[in-house]
Amino acid sequence: MTRFVLVAGTTATARIEGISAAGADADSVAHTPSADAELIEYGHLVRAPDLPVSPTGCPTPATVTRAVRETVGFETLVVDAGLGAPTGAATVEVGAKPGRDVRETDPVPTAPGAWVAARELGRALPDDELVVGETIPGGTTTALGVCRALGADVPVSSSLPENPRSLKESVVAEGLEASDLSPGDAAYRPELAVRFLGDPVLAVVGGLATGALQSGTDVVLGGGTQMLAAAALVRHAGVAAPLTVATTAYVDRDVDAAGTAERLDCEFVATDPGFGDCDGPLTRYAAGEAKEGAGMGGALWLADRAGQLATVADGTLEVLERSTDKHGT
Amino acid sequence: MTRFVLVAGTTATARIEGISAAGADADSVAHTPSADAELIEYGHLVRAPDLPVSPTGCPTPATVTRAVRETVGFETLVVDAGLGAPTGAATVEVGAKPGRDVRETDPVPTAPGAWVAARELGRALPDDELVVGETIPGGTTTALGVCRALGADVPVSSSLPENPRSLKESVVAEGLEASDLSPGDAAYRPELAVRFLGDPVLAVVGGLATGALQSGTDVVLGGGTQMLAAAALVRHAGVAAPLTVATTAYVDRDVDAAGTAERLDCEFVATDPGFGDCDGPLTRYAAGEAKEGAGMGGALWLADRAGQLATVADGTLEVLERSTDKHGT
Repeated sequence: MTRFVLVAGTTATARIEGISAAGADADSVAHTPSADAELIEYGHLVRAPDLPVSPTGCPTPATVTRAVRETVGFETLVVDAGLGAPTGAATVEVGAKPGRDVRETDPVPTAPGAWVAARELGRALPDDELVVGETIPGGTTTALGVCRALGADVPVSSSLPENPRSLKESVVAEGLEASDLSPGDAAYRPELAVRFLGDPVLAVVGGLATGALQSGTDVVLGGGTQMLAAAALVRHAGVAAPLTVATTAYVDRDVDAAGTAERLDCEFVATDPGFGDCDGPLTRYAAGEAKEGAGMGGALWLADRAGQLATVADGTLEVLERSTDKHGT
Repeated sequence: MTRFVLVAGTTATARIEGISAAGADADSVAHTPSADAELIEYGHLVRAPDLPVSPTGCPTPATVTRAVRETVGFETLVVDAGLGAPTGAATVEVGAKPGRDVRETDPVPTAPGAWVAARELGRALPDDELVVGETIPGGTTTALGVCRALGADVPVSSSLPENPRSLKESVVAEGLEASDLSPGDAAYRPELAVRFLGDPVLAVVGGLATGALQSGTDVVLGGGTQMLAAAALVRHAGVAAPLTVATTAYVDRDVDAAGTAERLDCEFVATDPGFGDCDGPLTRYAAGEAKEGAGMGGALWLADRAGQLATVADGTLEVLERSTDKHGT
């Protein structure tokens, strides 16, 4: 049996001006992971105030994941990896708290404990296969930080059409300095990389994937450059088991995800949802926005495996229409 | 769409000697709701230490609910109504904490807040139908307390073959005295009844059912005398909408549940899982143990509606066999 696991959390790094497009404005960004969890669980908002959209109106990729779930019918689990706003989705706890800005000295003190608790959870889940997604605004910046700390060469994509690379680099450089680390200092110590340069979501994804693989469960990391960072964490934890990274064609077009996956000894698949032929809000994806998130690449891969990829665009539009009508009333 | 909601919590009332059979001994009783949630979600234990069994070896009714879920395939939601031990099941929070002994002055101070949060959740859930189950050792005693406080005439069943009625009556009498209430003093004030004589699970079930009914969602209370108490709470909250109580043939044989449901203007259905023809641990049910719990009556009703009632006994034995093998390894 396949279970889709959404690892949902926050980092104050997202509040840095220009870092994230995962919300219409700074206030709504904090609600995005909580809303994404509700959309995937219920196909509706329950406690979250608004459907997450980018400043230019690109709807959250959680609507795509939900659409696939309604067709393919997989089980789900939401892990609270430091949510910063109420959610009506049921969540499992691993001791994670919202991450602070990576430019602080010890931004994610809960990371090592959350890694261990998530690893135990990954070992204990009875499923044959986990497809893991993430939702954390600002997450590509902390992914860059983690890779620098590990000394892993992973490219960094963005939810914005123009990737603010130099801003991310300067944030990570400040973070390394604040934590008194040089690039590569956290090699083979993944818990330290996520604690000092990362975020609680990467800690949980890394721990969960590690534990699941150790217990013989197949793991698909459904996401873009954040999941490549998670794959690097798994490898730096000493786990050599087969691992797949499944992302979207949008990430694949943006950065060399395939080559990076290969260097990390991961299978790689990029799926195109075919939104280029759509009218309306999904054209924002074809224009290079959002690209990934909330397990979209993993969900598209599940849809493709089930022979249902062609239904995803219409299904997503249906989810969108329904979920902008709050509480289904 | 139908969703099965498990409302899971604890009350220190269960620690009174002779009150509950929901665990092999006093220590394991605290883990029963957490284990029940895992069994229904995963069909396996994840964080809970042991499969809940009565002192004589009757397995938890959660195994029956899980077996039905594997056949019928309904969605689930676990609400944390004051869990007292870790669970690997994802839960939604409504601000409930474990209940204290009803013989104390203010045993469930979180009850009014949890009622309101659960009511909002019930209003917001997008499902067409909720089937609500409960798991709380000691819950029949607090159900008696709530009914006394409301002045509602509801009989009280037991998970033990010999119902310790006089013990329950004396506990409730002490509880009324400690809270300075006479029978009926909390009539039409359900939040007070659950706060002073009840438990956090009844608060959440009452609030959730009230909110769901108010928003036009069908509600089936899947359980025995605790769910009759919950139905009384809903009626005392001023909600006159159609409401169904679905229980097991074991409860129906023990007390006049049908007549009570009729007085509360509820539809009533009692379903027999046919365990009388089984060998092994399920014979404990036919001997009058457990009787209900973890939504068993509601699940059996769903199985019957789907034409799958005949598969429940074998399915339950399969779940039992699998889940005594911890973590599926």
